[in-house]
Amino acid sequence: MNQTKMDDLRKWMISEQIDFTYVCEPRHVAYFSGYESDPHERVLALFLAVNEEESFLFTPALEVEEAKNSSWNAPVYGYLDSENPWEKIAQLLQKRNSAPTIAFEKDVLSVDRFDQLKNYLPSANLTKNATPVIEKLQLIKTQNEIDRLMAAGDWADKALLIGFNAIQDGASEQEIVAEIEYQLKRQGVLSMSFDTLVLTGKNAANPHGTPGNTLVAPHQLVLFDLGVIWDGYCSDVSRTVSFKETNDFQKEIYQLVLTAQLKAIEAVKPGITASELDSIARNVITEAGYGEYFNHRLGHGIGSIVHEYPSIITGNDLVIEEGMCFSIEPGVYIPENIGVRIEDCLHVTKTGCELFTKTPKELLIFD
Amino acid sequence: MNQTKMDDLRKWMISEQIDFTYVCEPRHVAYFSGYESDPHERVLALFLAVNEEESFLFTPALEVEEAKNSSWNAPVYGYLDSENPWEKIAQLLQKRNSAPTIAFEKDVLSVDRFDQLKNYLPSANLTKNATPVIEKLQLIKTQNEIDRLMAAGDWADKALLIGFNAIQDGASEQEIVAEIEYQLKRQGVLSMSFDTLVLTGKNAANPHGTPGNTLVAPHQLVLFDLGVIWDGYCSDVSRTVSFKETNDFQKEIYQLVLTAQLKAIEAVKPGITASELDSIARNVITEAGYGEYFNHRLGHGIGSIVHEYPSIITGNDLVIEEGMCFSIEPGVYIPENIGVRIEDCLHVTKTGCELFTKTPKELLIFD
Repeated sequence: MNQTKMDDLRKWMISEQIDFTYVCEPRHVAYFSGYESDPHERVLALFLAVNEEESFLFTPALEVEEAKNSSWNAPVYGYLDSENPWEKIAQLLQKRNSAPTIAFEKDVLSVDRFDQLKNYLPSANLTKNATPVIEKLQLIKTQNEIDRLMAAGDWADKALLIGFNAIQDGASEQEIVAEIEYQLKRQGVLSMSFDTLVLTGKNAANPHGTPGNTLVAPHQLVLFDLGVIWDGYCSDVSRTVSFKETNDFQKEIYQLVLTAQLKAIEAVKPGITASELDSIARNVITEAGYGEYFNHRLGHGIGSIVHEYPSIITGNDLVIEEGMCFSIEPGVYIPENIGVRIEDCLHVTKTGCELFTKTPKELLIFD
Repeated sequence: MNQTKMDDLRKWMISEQIDFTYVCEPRHVAYFSGYESDPHERVLALFLAVNEEESFLFTPALEVEEAKNSSWNAPVYGYLDSENPWEKIAQLLQKRNSAPTIAFEKDVLSVDRFDQLKNYLPSANLTKNATPVIEKLQLIKTQNEIDRLMAAGDWADKALLIGFNAIQDGASEQEIVAEIEYQLKRQGVLSMSFDTLVLTGKNAANPHGTPGNTLVAPHQLVLFDLGVIWDGYCSDVSRTVSFKETNDFQKEIYQLVLTAQLKAIEAVKPGITASELDSIARNVITEAGYGEYFNHRLGHGIGSIVHEYPSIITGNDLVIEEGMCFSIEPGVYIPENIGVRIEDCLHVTKTGCELFTKTPKELLIFD
């Protein structure tokens, strides 16, 4: 249970005259309540009340016991699959307030669920959007959160090492993925933060390609992109390495991406904007003539969700502050030819930044 | 690309005077278009037009190449992270129709995305809900889909066998999970259909508990719940087995759940209702005095998503038809004590049903 963040949210609720904030994104429910769950299509809802004692967690009946055993110490109510969750939620809310003003996560809540809530609670005011406030609460990380991101980063470094050791003639992308996840899970990592990517040769030219049966071949680059969830926080790292000697073109693209990444990292400090950071990396790649092949943003926020607000991208004038955590991950992807991405996540310090991942970045060549 | 299902959808669109169906759920985009993607927070959209030649797929720029290489053979448009996807989508739609009627997935689309579309396309009619139609299209599976569900079921049986072989003194829940996923991934399985569950002893009393460092101990039951995604289709199976001899209470609960499951499976045939199936299993457990500990529905639909429509539950008067595919999974969960669930998925035949998983169901005891 994150008391500090709930108190911060309540300050906003008071200023906006909001009675409840309805948190529906499971990762955000976990962020505030301490209760982790993947409810699939069932309803999981955290109602944070401006009067603390009116808050409650609402879960499928089959999760109530586990929710009560979590660090959440206010009431937990459950609903059976045969019951209408919206009817129960409406009753619970109306017992507390006959015409509540409820802020909701507009970016996440489905139109159908919004309509259900409105139908069962016609007296409620449902015009307040909680998404920007929750994004901002999560934007500046506490030292405790940074420690957990650092620990998640250590696991990502270990994962890369396992992957590098699995590179050999005849190994497929998917076998290397299996090896990485097996070793991590045996050591106690419960989940990856997204599907592990190992892409070789021209497969890496699809930035979000899918690992398959392609075998690692000599003189090809191998792109790794992976992360874990550790203690509720995510890591995310990319490295591109070589299996046996590379040619000059591969080296040129690699050095270009590395230069772009290092320049952007060097520029990170309080006061610069997200847009400026993106431009610093993008200009390096554009000036070398490969701008059209860097077809995504420079980075994204990271925390209890692997892709959080903000986007580090041209046009985003957000001013970087101490405690923000995000990725720096330029890439060059030439279809049917080559893909290189180098990514670290970091937290902004008073004067610069510190990376969560430490795996070396000179072009590593495995034999 | 699933031409038959798109044609079926178009029949509905014609009857409802709908110009476009906006498919936003990534698994449904894959179902119709053949293009598989996990776009995270980026926008992935399939616009199926009533005039076939006006259909298009809209993806993040970094996925356009992969989408073009998929079985989708109509136009693919991309957007850069620095562009507004809604502005681009609105332009693409308006080029085709200045005031289109668009059906959308009300159960999935977020309020924010709905508002974005409305704001950029004020002339559009956005009152039609595509969710029930897509659910119904997916409800009756084709032979090809059943074949793929059968293949996914075979992998689930293999996975259980790997898990059973990994049961030994000193093995933790998480280590057994790691072993199962490792062996499967090495054999070419790209994804599990949900986080693999291995829960031992009283941990299994939380139907959706999380595997952790608890070690398998003699004379305890071990609950497995797992599935894979194979060729775009899911499997889902549960077995509860014993590590060394069990006591009479464990045997009693096990037999009770097994009887409930077998009775329900025996009753599956065209003409019975979902509600009746749930009652058949639930009555067995209730009559034995454990009704309160069977705290979830009997089953759920399965297909390209692991939990699909319909719910097999009291109160659902849906009449079962040939070609429907769903799970039968009664369970008894006594907090701090014991958890047993036995689950198979099946397809309904002319006269009964056929299971996708074949792992034996007498209580297996491993030494």
